[in-house]
Amino acid sequence: MFDPIEKLKEHLRHASVSTDSAFKEGMNGSRDFLAGLFGEMGLNVEIVDTDLHPIVLAKREGDARWPHVIIYGHYDVQPADPIELWDSDPFEPVERDGRLYGRGAADNKGPQMAHIAAVAQALEENPSLPLRITFLIEGEEEIGSPSLLPFLEARKAELSEADLVLLSDTLSPSADQLVVTVGLRGIVALEVEFEGPKSDLHSGLHGGAVYNPLQALFEVCGSLHDSENRVTVPGFYDDVAQVEDWEREELAALGADEDSYRDFLGIDALHPHPDYNPFEAIRYLPTLEFNGMGGGYQGEGSKTIVPSKAMAKLTCRLVGNQDPFKVGALVKEAILARVPAGIKATVEMGHEGSPYLVVPPGRPNTPEDQPRRLAKAFEATERAIGDIFDKPPLFLREGGSIPIIADMKKTLGLDSVMVGLFLPEDNLHAPNESLNLSVIKKGIQVSKKVILALAEG
Amino acid sequence: MFDPIEKLKEHLRHASVSTDSAFKEGMNGSRDFLAGLFGEMGLNVEIVDTDLHPIVLAKREGDARWPHVIIYGHYDVQPADPIELWDSDPFEPVERDGRLYGRGAADNKGPQMAHIAAVAQALEENPSLPLRITFLIEGEEEIGSPSLLPFLEARKAELSEADLVLLSDTLSPSADQLVVTVGLRGIVALEVEFEGPKSDLHSGLHGGAVYNPLQALFEVCGSLHDSENRVTVPGFYDDVAQVEDWEREELAALGADEDSYRDFLGIDALHPHPDYNPFEAIRYLPTLEFNGMGGGYQGEGSKTIVPSKAMAKLTCRLVGNQDPFKVGALVKEAILARVPAGIKATVEMGHEGSPYLVVPPGRPNTPEDQPRRLAKAFEATERAIGDIFDKPPLFLREGGSIPIIADMKKTLGLDSVMVGLFLPEDNLHAPNESLNLSVIKKGIQVSKKVILALAEG
Repeated sequence: MFDPIEKLKEHLRHASVSTDSAFKEGMNGSRDFLAGLFGEMGLNVEIVDTDLHPIVLAKREGDARWPHVIIYGHYDVQPADPIELWDSDPFEPVERDGRLYGRGAADNKGPQMAHIAAVAQALEENPSLPLRITFLIEGEEEIGSPSLLPFLEARKAELSEADLVLLSDTLSPSADQLVVTVGLRGIVALEVEFEGPKSDLHSGLHGGAVYNPLQALFEVCGSLHDSENRVTVPGFYDDVAQVEDWEREELAALGADEDSYRDFLGIDALHPHPDYNPFEAIRYLPTLEFNGMGGGYQGEGSKTIVPSKAMAKLTCRLVGNQDPFKVGALVKEAILARVPAGIKATVEMGHEGSPYLVVPPGRPNTPEDQPRRLAKAFEATERAIGDIFDKPPLFLREGGSIPIIADMKKTLGLDSVMVGLFLPEDNLHAPNESLNLSVIKKGIQVSKKVILALAEG
Repeated sequence: MFDPIEKLKEHLRHASVSTDSAFKEGMNGSRDFLAGLFGEMGLNVEIVDTDLHPIVLAKREGDARWPHVIIYGHYDVQPADPIELWDSDPFEPVERDGRLYGRGAADNKGPQMAHIAAVAQALEENPSLPLRITFLIEGEEEIGSPSLLPFLEARKAELSEADLVLLSDTLSPSADQLVVTVGLRGIVALEVEFEGPKSDLHSGLHGGAVYNPLQALFEVCGSLHDSENRVTVPGFYDDVAQVEDWEREELAALGADEDSYRDFLGIDALHPHPDYNPFEAIRYLPTLEFNGMGGGYQGEGSKTIVPSKAMAKLTCRLVGNQDPFKVGALVKEAILARVPAGIKATVEMGHEGSPYLVVPPGRPNTPEDQPRRLAKAFEATERAIGDIFDKPPLFLREGGSIPIIADMKKTLGLDSVMVGLFLPEDNLHAPNESLNLSVIKKGIQVSKKVILALAEG
């Protein structure tokens, strides 16, 4: 059996930056590393070509009656820039004070290795383990997974036979308190452009006669929330999933503190929807957030014009049963309905992703028809974390978006068990990314327990 | 007596671009040209040094009981860029179809030459003309006249003895209809910055808990006008001068047409204050105009952040008796009063200039104590234009700002008679600037008649 930490270091030496074609060698190296490792483990490895970076698929096949788990991960990493802010070479892993430093250590090569090592150990100890396992490791997660959905659709017949997806690409708040993520927000992006006069006008010669498109944009976009931060788009909240008491209780158990959060953000007041505290609002509510805007003269000093154009970029985060296309259309319609005479407006939809929500077993709102093996995976995960980390996990929804989780649900009909194995201090996407080695070593034990439990049938 | 058009051509060959130090030679050449010309005319020439470009002062002194007119002009010009759009060298004047092409032809070397030539003729015909004349030709008009106010203050005792200022640096709508400008809008610039969280935040991890500063800026700036385009800043309209019936009538005589104006601007509706038509609103009302704004991500695609900062630049145009410092303070106060908790805001005042308003003689609202010689200048101007252009001028307020006119009123106590000698088709500040030579030749006759009338006492 290989040493998981040494193998992880080997993986980290491959600079697999998917967004930059200069890192082609690192991408190939990482892919070949995984193929080799899965081969050593006796799995059937397939390199699935895509338009950009191949998917590594590695299967342990077996009796069709055996349970079947898909383990998801990604072998691509964020760029290391700005490299000068790193204390050591991002692609030459270094251990320091119980942490392993390197780009990709936490996102996602470390957490992914917990599952690989767990499977390797389980198979070494019991070569006839009655469990089918499919590793699905993609190379485009950091650039939006463009090839994954087409792949899932092409291989739907084969993959949808699985029982569930197991992965670790989410956050836990601390090494003492793991979180199993049971909800993710969806997203829909929109870009708004307002045009008034066909070119910038002298504000002395024309100001007062025409509708300034910046003013119109301020008025229309400024009308999209009420004074208590509710979105005023008609129908916006229609498909928002109910929040259960147990969800509020688990979240409260996190012990997040509003004062510390305010200080961390550097603001003097938080601004959630009136019926939710800030930590609830992030997880349980959709948002309409302005990400950028611009128009007219933005340089030094002033320029006395009535500008011709103004634009705003916004994204809505979505929850529960909201459909990004439906919400995008509602927002577009609300904006266009408020555009005044004298202004031409366009609203274009950009990328989108569905929200995701799964209910663990034993809750008041657990579906009666929840698949037995999914329930078993959740139960095994809860028990294993309780045993190994001395404290059971919290089952929480998160505010971020991982659209591929909803894609796997929609395409394959599969739910995901998401075990958070990275921590806030791990500096994901930032200089000096690192991994708490103790968490990963415990993560291997947790994953192994879950795998053994699943193999029970 | 010199040929005014040949002299004007000579002046235009000096590339006196004040904003660009590469044109030092052109600035010096233009200054020396004027000094030489005024010297030939027998005037006492003084080159008044400033921090940047000197003022050319040329005086015909005389008996203290003689009337005294200051004739204002500027010898600096706008840059000629983009030069490739000119049909001929901007600094090598060319006559074509009754027009003279060259940078500065219309702004301000041509109209200025009308007065210089008129004075030269009048003095040649009557060397003992009982009129004191001070030419005040500055070299910094195109860069905001930074040295003029300090100069006026320094020379206040001497200059405030004059009776009025005569100048031609305003627009007339056509060669058939001259305008004497009797009002100019003032201006005050403000820059607004909103700050929310101390750095950009991930909109998934934090969206819904904090006040987005773009949203706050939209809401606050979007509240500064009501649905009928009235500015909602308390006290904003307090010192707006009344509009007299005669003013609306003279403006109506212009015959401006809303449909053509709308087509010219490329919009489907105009948007004036409900009590004014668009042409009135431009001239008689103050505005609060957004000139630029920006915040967050403005590149291609989207970036899922809650931005840290947002900014807007705005200028208010002011009319009648409004004070730019007072209005600036009111707007600042209104914005700050509307900033929500969770947002830090700053509002900084930029440049400012007072509005200007003078009432010609014989109107219902003409001040009873209007100086006799000012009244005489207006009457002589009206009569001369009626004689020479076959149609009397309209006395109109304009929407633009020439802060030095208000400065001369405030500092020296002097009103200005502004005779519009350039036309919309003259392409001021644009490629192929030109001057209608027939208008200038008639302008010389008008100016001469006014000068002779003033000399009557």
